[in-house]
Amino acid sequence: MTTTVFPDRYRGMPVSQAGERATIEAITRVAPSAINGDDAAVLDPPNPNSLTVVTTDALVAGRHFRLDWSSAEDIGAKAVVQNAADIEAMGARPHALLLAMTLPGHTPLDFVTGVARGIRRRLDFYHMELVGGDVTMGDTLMLAMTATGRLTGPLPATRLDAAEAGQQILASGKLGWSAAGMALLEHFGPGDVPEEFLPLIGQHLSPEPAPGRGMVARAAGATAMTDNSDGLVHDLTVIAQRSRVRLDLDPHAIAPDDLLLRAARLLDRDPWEWVLTGGEDHTLLALSGSVPVTGFRVIGTCRRQGRYPVTVGGRVPRHTGGWESFGAV
Amino acid sequence: MTTTVFPDRYRGMPVSQAGERATIEAITRVAPSAINGDDAAVLDPPNPNSLTVVTTDALVAGRHFRLDWSSAEDIGAKAVVQNAADIEAMGARPHALLLAMTLPGHTPLDFVTGVARGIRRRLDFYHMELVGGDVTMGDTLMLAMTATGRLTGPLPATRLDAAEAGQQILASGKLGWSAAGMALLEHFGPGDVPEEFLPLIGQHLSPEPAPGRGMVARAAGATAMTDNSDGLVHDLTVIAQRSRVRLDLDPHAIAPDDLLLRAARLLDRDPWEWVLTGGEDHTLLALSGSVPVTGFRVIGTCRRQGRYPVTVGGRVPRHTGGWESFGAV
Repeated sequence: MTTTVFPDRYRGMPVSQAGERATIEAITRVAPSAINGDDAAVLDPPNPNSLTVVTTDALVAGRHFRLDWSSAEDIGAKAVVQNAADIEAMGARPHALLLAMTLPGHTPLDFVTGVARGIRRRLDFYHMELVGGDVTMGDTLMLAMTATGRLTGPLPATRLDAAEAGQQILASGKLGWSAAGMALLEHFGPGDVPEEFLPLIGQHLSPEPAPGRGMVARAAGATAMTDNSDGLVHDLTVIAQRSRVRLDLDPHAIAPDDLLLRAARLLDRDPWEWVLTGGEDHTLLALSGSVPVTGFRVIGTCRRQGRYPVTVGGRVPRHTGGWESFGAV
Repeated sequence: MTTTVFPDRYRGMPVSQAGERATIEAITRVAPSAINGDDAAVLDPPNPNSLTVVTTDALVAGRHFRLDWSSAEDIGAKAVVQNAADIEAMGARPHALLLAMTLPGHTPLDFVTGVARGIRRRLDFYHMELVGGDVTMGDTLMLAMTATGRLTGPLPATRLDAAEAGQQILASGKLGWSAAGMALLEHFGPGDVPEEFLPLIGQHLSPEPAPGRGMVARAAGATAMTDNSDGLVHDLTVIAQRSRVRLDLDPHAIAPDDLLLRAARLLDRDPWEWVLTGGEDHTLLALSGSVPVTGFRVIGTCRRQGRYPVTVGGRVPRHTGGWESFGAV
């Protein structure tokens, strides 16, 4: 991490007063890149036969995060993870990042530095680089990120339409933790959540999926993959419909863990709702043969297309909703 | 252009009612792509030795465009041009586009279709494809686009820091037309601008720079390039400072044309202000040797670094401002 200090005269200054140049510098000092700063960034030469993959995702204040819950670092870090997970879901290696950010004029420059710090922390994690961006003023704080990735070798990308009956359904991380964390924050407020549940809060505010899992799964034979950004059943339904299969989850393999059960008891909620409909864990969900894949566990079986796209132990799931970015705030 | 008709039941419906899926479809029906719709898009294999370039730029309602001046088509088209110009300024060929769009809930779905139509019109012009995106609701209409491009062959990219004393300064399009168009719109309102000035209005609302000029300039020996997105003097100052040279403009070569002179007389304005500080024409500005470059005209000479980065006929320019995206709205 660079330790360049931003000039003291900017301390506590809002971006409208500091100006565009200082705001850009607040970011590029924390997350520098030799190829940033021209009209466009020229990416390193890829390996022979490697393909570039690209994805874009926006986070809007009040919709995707709450400024009274998330720190500036959390917001920057979460935006990177959300985009990198989409690259990983193709079986590719995240490579470069671009950031278009809209800021209300009263935003302190220190907040921008904090966002950049969160971005940088996650970028280092993935060995990525912030290669370009655009900052502009606007009424609402918004981060629109674009990530590029490298898909190397002869295997095809892991797509939504490439699941096959007979495969296993694999998962690489937590299911429902982010949703439980959000429910706890809504109930207690950010300062008063009982300490035992801090892992759930952390998962909601700044999930930290292990990097590189997507490449591992593709190399081990996974043909289809996505991440649970909108909800387990919701995201698997997309794979099931596009691949014309049924995805049958094993209720024992996805059963709520102890922490979810305790949180659910405390809030008088059904923990299965968090597991089945909670998104934003950015856990990779892969369809693969019977070879074990490092870092993944089996959570179900892919079957021939049936009446329902996703089932749990052969039955219709008890909860099937998911995140709708157009839902009421 | 595809002629698929969007289901009639969505006619006149706001996006909050139509939902996320219909809103995405309103875009992808107009600008379809075989590689859109997965977690990330896998781009076509590049030519051997080709490099990928990437850039991002956001347009915010009320700041970069006015909804009472610009049609939905204008907004979509202008956003593409703004991003493609940054790719061209590297000497590269624009290739793929991603769109992250924030929409107020009351936005009619027909408006989204209009934006997509404007995007598609410009994409076809550049032989580009819309390969991914993200739509979300938010208080302000905002389009954050990312463009990728291909840089083929052994020549380096045309960078901001690669101008050399002795080179000619070249320009490929209009200078000051967009700024004059904006001044006319401010004075008369969108319905009452005298007909003779419609080309200036068109240049402001939806500039149409000729595509492919950036590749031509790089192939012909240009080493540095940018586009006048923020203002002629402003953008050339960046090249002059990064390249440690002085850029001396020829006052005869950049003198306001008849149309600018007539508009300036009518509004009692100095047309040189539009030429020197007006941005958004997205005219390419290149530094090259003495070989003529198709589509470009000579507008000055690159000299050794002096006291001022940019001069006009050896003197300090009369106007030196430029677009500041953090300025008061």
